[in-house]
Amino acid sequence: MGNIPSGINTPEILVDVEKLERNIARVAQRVSSQGLKLRPHAKTHKMLEVADRQLTAGAAGLTVATVGEALNFALHGVPKLFIAYPLWINESQAERILELMKRAKLSIGTDSVAAVQQMAKMLGEKACKVKLMIEIDSGHHRSGVAPAQAVEIADAARDAGLRVHGVFTFPGHSYAPNAIDEAVNQEHKALAEAACLLRKAGHQVKRISGGSTPTAELSDNSVLTEVRPGVYVFGDAQQFELGRTGWNDIALSVASTVISRHEGSADIPRRIVVDAGSKVLGADRPAWASGYGRVMECPEASITALSEHHATIAWPDDRELPGYGEQLRIIPNHVCVAVNLVDSVLAIHPDGAVERWDVNARGLNY
Amino acid sequence: MGNIPSGINTPEILVDVEKLERNIARVAQRVSSQGLKLRPHAKTHKMLEVADRQLTAGAAGLTVATVGEALNFALHGVPKLFIAYPLWINESQAERILELMKRAKLSIGTDSVAAVQQMAKMLGEKACKVKLMIEIDSGHHRSGVAPAQAVEIADAARDAGLRVHGVFTFPGHSYAPNAIDEAVNQEHKALAEAACLLRKAGHQVKRISGGSTPTAELSDNSVLTEVRPGVYVFGDAQQFELGRTGWNDIALSVASTVISRHEGSADIPRRIVVDAGSKVLGADRPAWASGYGRVMECPEASITALSEHHATIAWPDDRELPGYGEQLRIIPNHVCVAVNLVDSVLAIHPDGAVERWDVNARGLNY
Repeated sequence: MGNIPSGINTPEILVDVEKLERNIARVAQRVSSQGLKLRPHAKTHKMLEVADRQLTAGAAGLTVATVGEALNFALHGVPKLFIAYPLWINESQAERILELMKRAKLSIGTDSVAAVQQMAKMLGEKACKVKLMIEIDSGHHRSGVAPAQAVEIADAARDAGLRVHGVFTFPGHSYAPNAIDEAVNQEHKALAEAACLLRKAGHQVKRISGGSTPTAELSDNSVLTEVRPGVYVFGDAQQFELGRTGWNDIALSVASTVISRHEGSADIPRRIVVDAGSKVLGADRPAWASGYGRVMECPEASITALSEHHATIAWPDDRELPGYGEQLRIIPNHVCVAVNLVDSVLAIHPDGAVERWDVNARGLNY
Repeated sequence: MGNIPSGINTPEILVDVEKLERNIARVAQRVSSQGLKLRPHAKTHKMLEVADRQLTAGAAGLTVATVGEALNFALHGVPKLFIAYPLWINESQAERILELMKRAKLSIGTDSVAAVQQMAKMLGEKACKVKLMIEIDSGHHRSGVAPAQAVEIADAARDAGLRVHGVFTFPGHSYAPNAIDEAVNQEHKALAEAACLLRKAGHQVKRISGGSTPTAELSDNSVLTEVRPGVYVFGDAQQFELGRTGWNDIALSVASTVISRHEGSADIPRRIVVDAGSKVLGADRPAWASGYGRVMECPEASITALSEHHATIAWPDDRELPGYGEQLRIIPNHVCVAVNLVDSVLAIHPDGAVERWDVNARGLNY
C-alpha cells in the first residue's frame, strides 16, 4: 500500500488505486472463468470511480441496497441496477422508483405476497417492467423465504401482472470461520430447489443470483448464473481473518495519528491510542474477530477497544511503541460501514498522485 | 414519544422535541443544584438546534471531540469550546485552530509533554491563549495519564509558555452494569489527586472536569467544578439498560418499516425484519446489552442481529407479529454514532409540527 500523503489531517480514508484495480480485475476474470456474471454490490464503495472501473471490467450491472443508491448510480448512467432488498414500497418510494425506471433497467427483491401486491398497487402499469427477484433464505435466517414458499410469491406476482425474473440469496452466515463451505452448499441447494420448484410451477427463472465476497470464489455455474460480491474491491480485516483476502490485497485503510502512548505497568496495559475511532472505522466486531480492525504497519498489534474518536492498540511487547504524531494505517473490520462514514476518500495512484473521490451514495439509507 | 409522521421514507431518525427539552432542562437544573457547571458534549447531537437549547438552559459552553466540531459551533457563535481530546497538532490543524481562536475561547486537552511542546511550536505566540486541560486516566485506560504524571506535563507547559487551566477525565469504564459507583469514586479520586499535586507544584487548577451521562448524576462539587455529559439529551438503549435514563425520557428513535416477517419453525426463529440496520443505528453492541437496540413499541422484543440495512427482531411469542409495511421506532444502542450517520433528522414538536434539523457537524472527524 502506498505511503500516507504528507501533511494530511487524520483520520482520513485512503484508497490504494493500484490494489483496487488489481482486485477488480482479478475477481472479474475469475467470475468470468467460472461461467458466471458479476453484479457487484455497490453498497461497499458508493463511489462512481469504483463503479466505473467495475463496469469497464465487465460487470453485468450493479447491485445496490436502497432506492437512493440506485438513483445515485442511475443518474450517473449505470444502465442496469438490482436492488437486492425486499422493498416495501410506499407512495413516496414509488415516485422515486418510477423516476429510476426512466433511466435504468431495474430488478427488485421481494420475499412476500404482500410486498408483491403492494408493488403492483404502488407502481401501477409500470410494475410489469420491474424484474422481480424472489429472495430465498439459504440459512442466514434474516429476510428471504424457504424455497417451497417461492412458488406462492411467484403466483401472486403473475396474478398481479408482475414479471418474475429469478431468485437470489445472501449467505450471510458464511461470515464466520470454517462456515464458508457449508454456507456455499446451503446457498446452492436452496437456490437450485427454489428454481426447480418455480419452473415446475410454470414460472421462468432467468437469473439465479448468489454470493458474497466469501462465497463467490467457491461458486460455479452449475446452479448460479451470477454472483454479487461487494467487499472484494477493498478487502477488510474480517475478510483477511476469514482467509478470503490477502494482507497485500487490502486496498483501503484509515490514516490515523498516534495521540497517546503508555508503556503500562502491572495493572495498566501497554498501549498506544490513535485518532481513528468508531466514527470512521465503524464498530462492527464479530465474536471471532481478533479486535476492532488491524494495523497495516504491524499485523501483530491488536485493537482492543474502540471509542468514537480513539482506537486503543495493544502493541507487541517486543516492539517499541510508535512515537507521538506518528501515522499508522488502520484496516477496518467491515469496510462497507467505514466508507459510509465519510464524504470523500483520498485515492492514491501508483505514481503517488492523490485524488479526492466523493462517496456519492453515502448515507442514502432509503 | 410522538407518532411517526405519515408518508415518510424509512429509515429516518426522529427527535421528540418535548422530551429533548425536558431532558435538557432536567439535567441543567440538577447539575446546577449539584453546584457544578454543565459543559455538555456536543458530539452526541452535532446540531445547532440542540446546542442552542443547551446554552439557553445555562450551559457554560460546549465540549467537542474534534477541531472540525469546534469550528462548526464557533462559526454559529458558540463562545466557549472545550476540545476534550489530546490533540496532536500538525500544520494544517494549527491553521484551523488559529482560525477558531478568533471566534471562541478555547480549551484543549493534552496528555503528554510531547503534545504540549508540539502545540507550543505549531500555535506560536497564540499558544498561550489556549486553556490547557490535562487528561487524567481514572481507570478507563484509554488516553490520559496517572495523576502523578500530570505535574511533568504542567511543568513542560509552563516552560513552553502555555497556560494550564485544569484537569479532566472520561470515566468510560462506567458504561457497564454495576460499574458506575466504583467508576465515580475512581474519577473523583484521580482528579482530586491530580489537582492536589498540581497545586502543590505551583500550578493553578481552575477547572476540574468529569463526567459522562452515567456518572454526572452521582457527582457534586466536593471535587469537580463541572461535568460533560452528552447522551442525556436523547438517551439511548445502553443508558436505559444501565438504568441511567427512563424509557419515557428517550427522545430519539429511528423510524423503520417491517419488510419481512416469519412465523418460524422448530429450526428457524420467529422474527420480523425492519429496514433500519447498522448504517443508521450504528453497530455498537456491548457484551452486556440485550441486543442491537430496543423497539419503542415493544420493550420485550429483542434485536438479535443487525446487517447494514436490516435489523432482525425476535418478537415475543405471545404477541402477533407486526404486519408488512407497519412502522416501528428503534432505539439505537449508542445514540452518538446513530446521529453521525445521517445528514438530518426529523424533529417532531408537541403540536405535531415536523421540522428537519441538519446534523451540521456530522462526519467532522478532524
